[in-house]
Amino acid sequence: MAAEQEVHEGDYVLLYSEKKKWLLKVSSRQFHTHRGIVDLAEVIGKRYGEKVRSSLNYDFTLLKPTVHDHLLNLVRLTQILYPKDIGLIIQYLDISPGRRVLEIGTGSGALTISIANLVKPSGHLYTYEARKRFAEIAQRNVQRVGLEEYVTIHNIDAKQGIEEREVDAVAIDVGDPWELIPLVAHALKPGYPLCSFSPTINQVEKTVEALHSSHFVDVSTLECFLRDIRVATGKTRPATTMIGHTGYLTFARKALA
Amino acid sequence: MAAEQEVHEGDYVLLYSEKKKWLLKVSSRQFHTHRGIVDLAEVIGKRYGEKVRSSLNYDFTLLKPTVHDHLLNLVRLTQILYPKDIGLIIQYLDISPGRRVLEIGTGSGALTISIANLVKPSGHLYTYEARKRFAEIAQRNVQRVGLEEYVTIHNIDAKQGIEEREVDAVAIDVGDPWELIPLVAHALKPGYPLCSFSPTINQVEKTVEALHSSHFVDVSTLECFLRDIRVATGKTRPATTMIGHTGYLTFARKALA
Amino acid sequence: MAAEQEVHEGDYVLLYSEKKKWLLKVSSRQFHTHRGIVDLAEVIGKRYGEKVRSSLNYDFTLLKPTVHDHLLNLVRLTQILYPKDIGLIIQYLDISPGRRVLEIGTGSGALTISIANLVKPSGHLYTYEARKRFAEIAQRNVQRVGLEEYVTIHNIDAKQGIEEREVDAVAIDVGDPWELIPLVAHALKPGYPLCSFSPTINQVEKTVEALHSSHFVDVSTLECFLRDIRVATGKTRPATTMIGHTGYLTFARKALA
Amino acid sequence: MAAEQEVHEGDYVLLYSEKKKWLLKVSSRQFHTHRGIVDLAEVIGKRYGEKVRSSLNYDFTLLKPTVHDHLLNLVRLTQILYPKDIGLIIQYLDISPGRRVLEIGTGSGALTISIANLVKPSGHLYTYEARKRFAEIAQRNVQRVGLEEYVTIHNIDAKQGIEEREVDAVAIDVGDPWELIPLVAHALKPGYPLCSFSPTINQVEKTVEALHSSHFVDVSTLECFLRDIRVATGKTRPATTMIGHTGYLTFARKALA
Repeated sequence: MAAEQEVHEGDYVLLYSEKKKWLLKVSSRQFHTHRGIVDLAEVIGKRYGEKVRSSLNYDFTLLKPTVHDHLLNLVRLTQILYPKDIGLIIQYLDISPGRRVLEIGTGSGALTISIANLVKPSGHLYTYEARKRFAEIAQRNVQRVGLEEYVTIHNIDAKQGIEEREVDAVAIDVGDPWELIPLVAHALKPGYPLCSFSPTINQVEKTVEALHSSHFVDVSTLECFLRDIRVATGKTRPATTMIGHTGYLTFARKALA
Repeated sequence: MAAEQEVHEGDYVLLYSEKKKWLLKVSSRQFHTHRGIVDLAEVIGKRYGEKVRSSLNYDFTLLKPTVHDHLLNLVRLTQILYPKDIGLIIQYLDISPGRRVLEIGTGSGALTISIANLVKPSGHLYTYEARKRFAEIAQRNVQRVGLEEYVTIHNIDAKQGIEEREVDAVAIDVGDPWELIPLVAHALKPGYPLCSFSPTINQVEKTVEALHSSHFVDVSTLECFLRDIRVATGKTRPATTMIGHTGYLTFARKALA
Repeated sequence: MAAEQEVHEGDYVLLYSEKKKWLLKVSSRQFHTHRGIVDLAEVIGKRYGEKVRSSLNYDFTLLKPTVHDHLLNLVRLTQILYPKDIGLIIQYLDISPGRRVLEIGTGSGALTISIANLVKPSGHLYTYEARKRFAEIAQRNVQRVGLEEYVTIHNIDAKQGIEEREVDAVAIDVGDPWELIPLVAHALKPGYPLCSFSPTINQVEKTVEALHSSHFVDVSTLECFLRDIRVATGKTRPATTMIGHTGYLTFARKALA
Repeated sequence: MAAEQEVHEGDYVLLYSEKKKWLLKVSSRQFHTHRGIVDLAEVIGKRYGEKVRSSLNYDFTLLKPTVHDHLLNLVRLTQILYPKDIGLIIQYLDISPGRRVLEIGTGSGALTISIANLVKPSGHLYTYEARKRFAEIAQRNVQRVGLEEYVTIHNIDAKQGIEEREVDAVAIDVGDPWELIPLVAHALKPGYPLCSFSPTINQVEKTVEALHSSHFVDVSTLECFLRDIRVATGKTRPATTMIGHTGYLTFARKALA
């Protein structure tokens, strides 16, 4: 059994019990739930996959938190990007270890973390966030998942200038992406991809116009829906409610004029 | 200008012209399209992002192919997984550099390549494919994108035994995933995630039953839709047709009994 | 101005104010809202389309209630069918004035009312509801919208026998539609359509099997999604949440053996 | 057995064989299909629901055509409205026997026929079509389904004036609905509903603005998706492709200024 399989004090663990999950940093304390108290001291030294029992005799399974679990538990000031959208961004931007990626609009850092986690250890994510409060929270979130070495957060408005050059990909998540297109075009390697996320169709129209003006080609816009299926043999059905909209994803590639 | 930005003989390049794209290996030959002949010898030494002109005077932009572009051009015997589904698998399986991942059902190698590209250089993808023809084609596809160092294709039926142990994640894309669950449960680290992809709801029901029998927890099933938006200022509308179904994604995490 | 355009005591009126709507029976009383008190006595003698002012100086527009407005305000014990599903049923069942329609599973009477409203005055809707409480509530709902003349509610289990013969269409909304298929096949004119609504895919499978066994042809199953679009010039976007599932609609036509 | 159950010469019949359907007018002629020749003389005198055998020994079932079957077989110059959209229009416009309805943009007459079929025999549908060719084809289509008594087609541009007053509902399906809103507002009873169908989001934005300017209230926009489910016990799955977009439906109700 590998040592990494053991839960140590200070590790994050995902406690699971009957469709509920809690992401916790392990220390000698008590954790209160509607299914009783879990003594976290008992968790130390256990293996992931094992169970602990609460004061009300419910089993809680210790799961290894994924980056996605961390994203759901970020300190956040606004809505973060959803996995369905992050998944498409990662693929269309060709994110992989070693890539140098530029992000405009750090927000709470969800996409920042997702990309940094995939470009490490040799790559890097440079991100711009004009709002001080967001930049600080994003920094804290990045540290929490241990990715600070691979992330540079610039707490300045990207419109005042982007210092990086020859990046492999650009991801934009701001309210006025069309204003940024000429600037990020300078930073992006020719022939390489860009993505912009926007909630409204009007933002998308302006962004697509700006992309054409800045000589981007292969411009496409996508919308992604996700639906939960409630699976139970003999009574399987989709969930009654679903998220109907997060935003539109626009992809393009930089051509030289 | 970095040397990697120049197109060399033997490189792959994505030729783009008016919404059409062709993935080509560069050599001194002529490439025929409905917009005229492109002399690929002219491409050598150019930079990505630059254009070449066809015999009919159309511009073709040289784009850097992404892994996703390669996936669309794989030699394939069956339908491959779509980016929308691969994107979710990557996130829920917590794929990142260094991970050791087990795949059952290599098929043409699309998911194989997507995962190997993200676990490299220190991680590895082990994949099982019972059908000889598929294993060979997948091997060729993996080589084509230069990822063979990070991929082991076992051309045997996984039901006869899986040799890997303590893998970080499991991805299954076979017709009878429920038969594999007990076997992959042995190979997967406790507390870590598994994914299974199936086109029919009946396969999903059986898989979910098998997951519960093998003590998996946090079992969930998702369905993902993707829609193209035709963006043109003043006449923006979704595309008329879309893919209505590829398959269901079932995720779970291994608990100890 | 037609007299029917005037609001009389006892009429139903839909009060609208700033995206909120209330369906009310007009009488000399006060109606309390979060935008102040509306004196309904003032409404009498006004024309539809006119406004009344509340005690807090908000305008409330008097709208003519549609059958759909009434459906949203039915006394109901369970979820009723949605307009998206009713709309498809009406068309595939070829509902029109003069038709004689059989319904199994009256529930709260939403589909009952929708169909009766379209077959009147020369047609009729016969409906079976085994549960006394539902049959009573449905009867009250049908009376409320003034359609009792065109509806016969049988408060018996349809499995004990259906007395109607040669009906033009059959609509089923019960938990075990497959049990009813042979019985309704007797009641339906050969060559004419049937519809069954079920929330789970397993119910659908059993129903489709039963339809084939009873010689129905042209069997098809549909799923319908509806999404609200928030339209505001310059910031138009789909609504964040939507109904992800109500049920599956299965249609078929009766053939002779 | 009712006489209406027998197929006579001149009747329309829907021939069904193995998932294929043909809508035919019965006469003494031969009908050629990929499953052999059907002698339509044999059909005369048969009952709906009965079968005839083709020259290649395939069974063809005689089904009673619905209005929806006729819509799918209209002579048409452009895309017609889909049942999913017609179904919502019927309900939100409160279509029922006796209503007087105004339609702008007859097109090939699909919505015209759907509404006329539901307002008959005491109601009427008035429709405006500026293009001569469309007006003629719509007239022929309306006659074919025998609804000409309940439909008035004006072959003039509605912008030149709408003569009807105090109609119960308005349906618009033209390229520039916003130009029509003030005109149809004059024709519609106060407090009553209007619907407009448009393929692009920009048309919807302009229409919604025009509706607000003309004092309409309760303005809402919907988008409806339909998916086929391939049901086969043990291998049930949604259809691979679906219609991703037809158009947006905007509903509103007329208030007095």
